[in-house]
Amino acid sequence: MDLVAIGFVRSPIQDPTDAPRQGRDAGTEVDIQILPAFADALDGLDAIARVIVVCWMHRARRDRLRMVRRSEPGSAPVGVFATRTPHRPNPLAVYTADLLGRSGATLRVRGVDAVDGTPVVDLRPFVPRLDA
Amino acid sequence: MDLVAIGFVRSPIQDPTDAPRQGRDAGTEVDIQILPAFADALDGLDAIARVIVVCWMHRARRDRLRMVRRSEPGSAPVGVFATRTPHRPNPLAVYTADLLGRSGATLRVRGVDAVDGTPVVDLRPFVPRLDA
Repeated sequence: MDLVAIGFVRSPIQDPTDAPRQGRDAGTEVDIQILPAFADALDGLDAIARVIVVCWMHRARRDRLRMVRRSEPGSAPVGVFATRTPHRPNPLAVYTADLLGRSGATLRVRGVDAVDGTPVVDLRPFVPRLDA
Repeated sequence: MDLVAIGFVRSPIQDPTDAPRQGRDAGTEVDIQILPAFADALDGLDAIARVIVVCWMHRARRDRLRMVRRSEPGSAPVGVFATRTPHRPNPLAVYTADLLGRSGATLRVRGVDAVDGTPVVDLRPFVPRLDA
């Protein structure tokens, strides 16, 4: 199961320690530069206001199954599948982001707090659950 | 960027043509069998009612950049990133599912309309956007 990069995040966040805690600040605006080979797959995206962006957190560890929540230092470790830490067996991040604009194959989005250079592996419309 | 299977879907749906159209029916109940090597990563998940399940759609095509929407036959093709088709450069599916129960490393969920045997690559709490 081999992922290809469809693009990369261009972000003011240069280091993971500068990233806002997830959910606390969804205000970061970044560009997503889609690679030319995949630009045709963007057709029709302009009409969509909210997208799911899946990134590959290339700096994350993959060997941890439990962790202590940052928000609860001293608490018992929990399984990484009960958290959204990037440090997980498959270091994916799943962001719900506002699509602010598009210029060619570059998308401007709000809500992706990934570091500069993070590979993007998928992009799709966000559709709320009907029963949500 | 190499994904590992953390588990597999055990589903009554045996063939993709039997799968309900996405969003039309979120009622399918399936089991997710997490592999023993990753069972420790489930600790604490029991307290979570709604999860994001990321699957690898192993039967999908990866070479299509545009498609005609099934709901609009005869319409102009749109880019696959503007749709949720499994046929996309990285054939991921991102489900928001209700976690109904857990028995050991097997999770019962509602809302994952994947075929039996589909690899699961990530599992995480669903957290609504604060401004949603």
